[in-house]
Amino acid sequence: MNVNDHPTRTIRPLPNGAVEIIDQTLLPHRLQWRTLMTLTDACEAIVVMRVRGAPLIGATAAYGMALATRADASDAGLAQASAALIATRPTAVNLRWAVERMQAVLLPLPVAQRAATAWTEAARICDEDVACNAAIGQHGLALFQKWARPGQPLRVMTHCNAGWLATVDWGTALAPVYAAQAIGMPLFVWASETRPRNQGASLTAWELREQGIDHAVIADNAAGLLMRRGEVDVVIVGADRVAANGDVANKVGTYLKALAAHDNGIPFYVAVPGPTIDWRIPDAAHIPIEERDAVEVTHIPGALDDALHTVRLTPAGCAAVNPAFDITPARLVTGIITECGVAPPGRLADLYPNPA
Amino acid sequence: MNVNDHPTRTIRPLPNGAVEIIDQTLLPHRLQWRTLMTLTDACEAIVVMRVRGAPLIGATAAYGMALATRADASDAGLAQASAALIATRPTAVNLRWAVERMQAVLLPLPVAQRAATAWTEAARICDEDVACNAAIGQHGLALFQKWARPGQPLRVMTHCNAGWLATVDWGTALAPVYAAQAIGMPLFVWASETRPRNQGASLTAWELREQGIDHAVIADNAAGLLMRRGEVDVVIVGADRVAANGDVANKVGTYLKALAAHDNGIPFYVAVPGPTIDWRIPDAAHIPIEERDAVEVTHIPGALDDALHTVRLTPAGCAAVNPAFDITPARLVTGIITECGVAPPGRLADLYPNPA
Repeated sequence: MNVNDHPTRTIRPLPNGAVEIIDQTLLPHRLQWRTLMTLTDACEAIVVMRVRGAPLIGATAAYGMALATRADASDAGLAQASAALIATRPTAVNLRWAVERMQAVLLPLPVAQRAATAWTEAARICDEDVACNAAIGQHGLALFQKWARPGQPLRVMTHCNAGWLATVDWGTALAPVYAAQAIGMPLFVWASETRPRNQGASLTAWELREQGIDHAVIADNAAGLLMRRGEVDVVIVGADRVAANGDVANKVGTYLKALAAHDNGIPFYVAVPGPTIDWRIPDAAHIPIEERDAVEVTHIPGALDDALHTVRLTPAGCAAVNPAFDITPARLVTGIITECGVAPPGRLADLYPNPA
Repeated sequence: MNVNDHPTRTIRPLPNGAVEIIDQTLLPHRLQWRTLMTLTDACEAIVVMRVRGAPLIGATAAYGMALATRADASDAGLAQASAALIATRPTAVNLRWAVERMQAVLLPLPVAQRAATAWTEAARICDEDVACNAAIGQHGLALFQKWARPGQPLRVMTHCNAGWLATVDWGTALAPVYAAQAIGMPLFVWASETRPRNQGASLTAWELREQGIDHAVIADNAAGLLMRRGEVDVVIVGADRVAANGDVANKVGTYLKALAAHDNGIPFYVAVPGPTIDWRIPDAAHIPIEERDAVEVTHIPGALDDALHTVRLTPAGCAAVNPAFDITPARLVTGIITECGVAPPGRLADLYPNPA
């Protein structure tokens, strides 16, 4: 997608063998690239959420393995790197998927060949993510055309950021938005701010503005009223992990939007590339929910006079509880959009006759 | 309730004929009383939400009428004061109720007697609010005892602030919490932060701490997950207006909590004093929903190094939409608690055989 009107990916290898990412903790206030030189750099970027979004976490983990091979490409070194990366965040399954794929490719090779192959394989994972998301965009576009009202902009609600910034390119939930824009379909996006980390207000709003898509930010609390008023045509979100039965783990608050969509007869779609589906687990009861620091609830960063500051919202020392994800049961999901097509959650396996 | 361990009401007449309120826009960071000298002061305090909460808005409006009578107690003066107060905020019906009651008491009197009577009547409205809320506390306590698990703290979730600070004393939704505390019943309160103005994170958290009630703040988005996990025994909220059929207008986001409670079989109660019920309207389709400034979504105030600052969360110039309330349909409400008892929403009229 475009940054300052220039096509850009969110993660890119550098000629010196390092990897460059956008430090998303500084958006929307500053666009700043950051260089990852080591496995430790990659782990840190995932833990503090300089990169986030299940597909981009997977891509960063793949490059983290590549960076690790240059320090120690032995079996023990790869095992250690894998463990360190997988420990960074528990919910998004793309992380584990990417690490296991890198292991599967590298471990059979002679140690001396591993570094070069790791680099190639990480780039391949990124290219595949871009291709998956482009395909999601086209499948989602067909749905958008079905739900559009003649002569009116399609009003899409999304949660968190499942856009370009959550992936290597295009996004998952926002890929159909960009595909629709490409054919001149009028669109309006409701971006819910997504407390506590405000990825909607910061990342989605920034990204949509860069791409020239009409949008407005709302408090997460406003989603139900807007749906009741008939101001939302379709809801589309990404996911951090989808269970085999179609249960969805996604950013906390997704479940509330799914309930409101269901209560108001509004279609609710989940857009994910194949690696976000965890075929090993039958349902969401088996998905670990990451608990993050209470300070993300009690304090919030923002811009003040062009500087970034963090202010406290609660009384000093106030207790807070901060689960980062929630579970949307399959019964509330109209359809899951993947690179292979669209299926109701209970028929997800139909899209993957031969799952890896 | 207590402030610094001293029993205190949220609004109080001063010997010099002015009225004193807590400036709630400065909480939880500063406890600062503010003097209202004129009708204009009272209107301003309501508009910028130095006072908020349907019952306290009603009490402030009553004192606003009293302040107005000293400048101009004529019929024209009262009409002008009434119009100015009613125009401040559209959703909470207690405002209109209090103004109309003051008019009904004052207009039949000789002009010279109106100021003294206005003062007495405003004090009576405040005393009645306190008595209503104390009764709500006892009726709600009986429900809490029904939902409590033996030997475990009752886990109560609330939204926004419907506590002491939203009323003259005791609160509506929190009155049963304080009644339970008074008899030594173990309690834990989940306070949802209530974006965009964060009344839960600022006012409810502050108030519960002052009263010594165990609590934690959560992002509004986390409410659904906590209910799915079985970490909530009962949800209780206040309201800004209840229609005759039991539909509820309350702080935006209430509807989402009601959907999640319903989806998880958790009782969902609405606690209101009689003046919050609008018998003139059959259902919530007739309740105006206040739209507030987008800046409440794009910017947020907080504490930084003991000073108060407002930071910007979104890209500069970002569009935002900010409805302040939403509608929870009666079908999602387990019961409405008033000073007269508890009724399912469809039987609300049973509590008021002779509504005024």
